[in-house]
Amino acid sequence: MPFEEKTLKSERIYEGKIINLRVDTVELPHKKYSKREIVEHSGAVGILAITEEKNIVLVRQFRKPVEEILLEIPAGKIEANETSEVCALRELKEETGFETDNIRKLLDFYTTPGFSNEIMHIFLAQNLSKGIATPDEDEYIEIVHIPLEEAVKKIINGEIKDSKTIIAILTYKNLLGIE
Amino acid sequence: MPFEEKTLKSERIYEGKIINLRVDTVELPHKKYSKREIVEHSGAVGILAITEEKNIVLVRQFRKPVEEILLEIPAGKIEANETSEVCALRELKEETGFETDNIRKLLDFYTTPGFSNEIMHIFLAQNLSKGIATPDEDEYIEIVHIPLEEAVKKIINGEIKDSKTIIAILTYKNLLGIE
Repeated sequence: MPFEEKTLKSERIYEGKIINLRVDTVELPHKKYSKREIVEHSGAVGILAITEEKNIVLVRQFRKPVEEILLEIPAGKIEANETSEVCALRELKEETGFETDNIRKLLDFYTTPGFSNEIMHIFLAQNLSKGIATPDEDEYIEIVHIPLEEAVKKIINGEIKDSKTIIAILTYKNLLGIE
Repeated sequence: MPFEEKTLKSERIYEGKIINLRVDTVELPHKKYSKREIVEHSGAVGILAITEEKNIVLVRQFRKPVEEILLEIPAGKIEANETSEVCALRELKEETGFETDNIRKLLDFYTTPGFSNEIMHIFLAQNLSKGIATPDEDEYIEIVHIPLEEAVKKIINGEIKDSKTIIAILTYKNLLGIE
């Protein structure tokens, strides 16, 4: 049976720019105890942007934690006092230059609920108009446009390996099959 | 242009049971610098197990980081000296009691490459035979079997919100469409 774990003690280990770390001591049935390492994150958005030519807009970006250049949908961290939709429009504009008033939620998910509370909100953006990109000071990205079926192939053959990008593309493909 | 970030300094903050935390100082173009907060993880597996009745085997489990009971595929952390396939068979048996010699890789992905190196290996397990589950001391889980189309509906309506579970189910659905 699933069992809600009561927190007995909470130790703050680190407070950072993107994440915090705490370790909770929790109570289990039969008076047992365990430790839970928890990475706190304020939440993020990812944007599946579809161009007039029906291509998906992806960004190529070096990711230090995995020491690889990854192909991902535009994405970013939600800032204080920002809704997920406002964040999605801001990140899309900053990273790719694209603007739109046609944006809607596709789905939300937890990236890795075993050790983090990070929630990812995925939006679908269409009817794009091109403005000027203004990436963050520490962001170096390259933009590519690829057809949906090519993106699906890149998931299957392992060229796309970022969770939010896989989920956005496969959910959109599933949606097109339904609608 | 994507730019590989050279590490200038690496500070170890925490060494834990499931994760470690370090903060790297990296060099950017034009002699600029930035900090990268990196959660180290040894990798994990998730298993999409299909029963004789063509149902998907899911586990319901309380997840402390998000303070919710989630519906997920069986999964777990790779132990030292264990291959991902051996880990998949072990976790499937421990959490659900199911055993099989019909297991194959579906795909690999990074759960959250912005702040962690965690890689998730997803396996497809079929021709299951039922043994006895032996969950970890601190795992309290409930097992459910649901048809593929119901699982897809639960992704769209938000009842399934775990990244590995969404990716496993949508990849399997896409595969059935192709094969």
